[in-house]
Amino acid sequence: MKPSEIITLTTDFGQRDPYVAMMKGVILSINPRARIVDITHDIRAGSIQEGSTIIAEAYPFFPSGSVHVGVIDPGVGGKRRPIAVAADGHFFVGPDNGLFWPVVAAHPQSHVIHLTEKSYWMDIISATFHGRDIFAPVASHLSCGIDPNLMGEKVDNPVVLTSPRAWREQDQFVGEVIRVDGFGNLITNITVEELAEFRASEGPIITIGGLALKGIRTTYSDVGEGEALALIGSSNLLEIAVNRGSARTELGDDCGIGAKVIVRFED
Amino acid sequence: MKPSEIITLTTDFGQRDPYVAMMKGVILSINPRARIVDITHDIRAGSIQEGSTIIAEAYPFFPSGSVHVGVIDPGVGGKRRPIAVAADGHFFVGPDNGLFWPVVAAHPQSHVIHLTEKSYWMDIISATFHGRDIFAPVASHLSCGIDPNLMGEKVDNPVVLTSPRAWREQDQFVGEVIRVDGFGNLITNITVEELAEFRASEGPIITIGGLALKGIRTTYSDVGEGEALALIGSSNLLEIAVNRGSARTELGDDCGIGAKVIVRFED
Amino acid sequence: MKPSEIITLTTDFGQRDPYVAMMKGVILSINPRARIVDITHDIRAGSIQEGSTIIAEAYPFFPSGSVHVGVIDPGVGGKRRPIAVAADGHFFVGPDNGLFWPVVAAHPQSHVIHLTEKSYWMDIISATFHGRDIFAPVASHLSCGIDPNLMGEKVDNPVVLTSPRAWREQDQFVGEVIRVDGFGNLITNITVEELAEFRASEGPIITIGGLALKGIRTTYSDVGEGEALALIGSSNLLEIAVNRGSARTELGDDCGIGAKVIVRFED
Repeated sequence: MKPSEIITLTTDFGQRDPYVAMMKGVILSINPRARIVDITHDIRAGSIQEGSTIIAEAYPFFPSGSVHVGVIDPGVGGKRRPIAVAADGHFFVGPDNGLFWPVVAAHPQSHVIHLTEKSYWMDIISATFHGRDIFAPVASHLSCGIDPNLMGEKVDNPVVLTSPRAWREQDQFVGEVIRVDGFGNLITNITVEELAEFRASEGPIITIGGLALKGIRTTYSDVGEGEALALIGSSNLLEIAVNRGSARTELGDDCGIGAKVIVRFED
Repeated sequence: MKPSEIITLTTDFGQRDPYVAMMKGVILSINPRARIVDITHDIRAGSIQEGSTIIAEAYPFFPSGSVHVGVIDPGVGGKRRPIAVAADGHFFVGPDNGLFWPVVAAHPQSHVIHLTEKSYWMDIISATFHGRDIFAPVASHLSCGIDPNLMGEKVDNPVVLTSPRAWREQDQFVGEVIRVDGFGNLITNITVEELAEFRASEGPIITIGGLALKGIRTTYSDVGEGEALALIGSSNLLEIAVNRGSARTELGDDCGIGAKVIVRFED
Repeated sequence: MKPSEIITLTTDFGQRDPYVAMMKGVILSINPRARIVDITHDIRAGSIQEGSTIIAEAYPFFPSGSVHVGVIDPGVGGKRRPIAVAADGHFFVGPDNGLFWPVVAAHPQSHVIHLTEKSYWMDIISATFHGRDIFAPVASHLSCGIDPNLMGEKVDNPVVLTSPRAWREQDQFVGEVIRVDGFGNLITNITVEELAEFRASEGPIITIGGLALKGIRTTYSDVGEGEALALIGSSNLLEIAVNRGSARTELGDDCGIGAKVIVRFED
């Protein structure tokens, strides 16, 4: 795989502390030509679920040969393995705690390496910051074109992450809110492909909390200002939104992450 | 215009979601040499007024031939046009909703293109994320030196944004607070040029809320710690500040955005 | 010193305003090849103490020949001098207010220049934004390899910053919390070197607020979820943390910055 020399970073470090910058310094010390892109550093502390969703959504927009570092690593310094994954033409580097599982599961040709070869790490390894001391230098070496097979041994049993999936129940789909974005849009785990089966029917009824919405719209401005709607969002997932407003704020506390969403098709 | 290969981004996306990173991935997939600079992603959701002010303030500090992408786009997927603007030796790319109007209005030689040529877009266009699917790829093609005239047709009637302007009233200027920065400084729409006319007079009296300040100072430390002052800020606008404190916090709620500011010159 | 063409930025500007981007525009206008890395822009407004700690912690992870700009500058436009420092193979640029003192004090070979040569500045210098008008252009010229001795005169008396230091008191070390990170970890000023002297003894007792902790652990997961521990953090300082939780939240208000921490060794 030809490296793109692009390295992305996804962490729960926030941007107040110098931790992200330390990782960038390490990366640029090894590969001065690396171009580093922040995906986000605002994953909720320790939320492997959120981190894995964000990485899986974002990486396909980068050129193949890019290296995606994920550091949501509450078990740092303990027994969890450091890994590198080659999947779908991209590399992923981070802890073996399920963070890359959605990518691995979707690509049967994935190749997972347990990172053991210390010559690709920093000289001194702290017990609490493997992002800086293992993952950043490994990512930078990958961005230089080093073969990941040189960095450790193949793993056949990476840690599995179980994520909530939507299911079909007779004439309806039952899913849930899996992410609330900065606009207050409620993103569900019901995919455009799942809804496609029902296309022939009349417009569905979407219910969440006490609210029932008729039909799946195309864009926010298809309804009046301040009105709620259901639509297919930019990641091809069913989304509940409020035109020029925040669904999170308007629809109340029972519509946050985990809230049940039902799509019922009428005959 | 020779491209600088610099692309700046101004959005209301925040930094928690992967949306900004998706745009960067798209840009780097088209022009791997592009250097991307975030102006801010913390524009208040949907605030075209704030976005337009920030872009107009920031772009002149970049080399000519830079491309400035603005995505404050509450009408995304509706009838508003996607545009590219060539003005003052820079390019601007985003929705035709007034976001670039201050730049266009200040430069009569501006050239506005309605983006219609889909070969410069992503293959699949979502209804809700034109920042990623239209504006990012167009910006990246512009950064490669593609002529914007190839990307669509000239527009003579871009959307006008009406912004509050200061006015003169006998021996005084009446303006308002248009931005509160992270230090709590209150930035007004009264320009250094407007004040220059009055230079011959004694120091003016500046009033805001219940407060009256005597004279326009040079810098914060010209007054004691915790004292309020008026000065000309770094963007050549009259600013109300508190030395080593926050005017926003100290002066109370009637001094936020929209608060009336009067500069009165004594004879 | 051969320039790395890397420039880091540490400020108290936040990321909402266009100030950081203006500095980047100025830097790239002078050296289009500069690679700019944000350390943080969330230093508490005017906190030279916090800024100096962060810069001293972060810079060693960058390649030598890097330029580190620090703009925590409450005295901007007043009498404080603008300086450039050459120390430990790196450059530092900012106000002479103690921000770089920890670096200077630790490296007797440091060289401090009072920046006076205006040909390396912007043409017009505002009174309130020397970050943009003096420090950014100076940093960019340094990243091009310009000798700092051409930019002004040597200074023998840079401003000293007095920082709280841990001290030894018979069989114990007395220090304090100097930083609380985004995870809520309490970072103290007690160094691994100071603790090393006591290695031969039994595990120490660490007290903070009403809490007494037995022993210094290796990593967070050495204790149960929600339990507090003391460990040596990734910057080689004693740290109080809660496994998969926030020590700042769990241990209460008397454990913030400045809280007394005692390490007592038993015989």
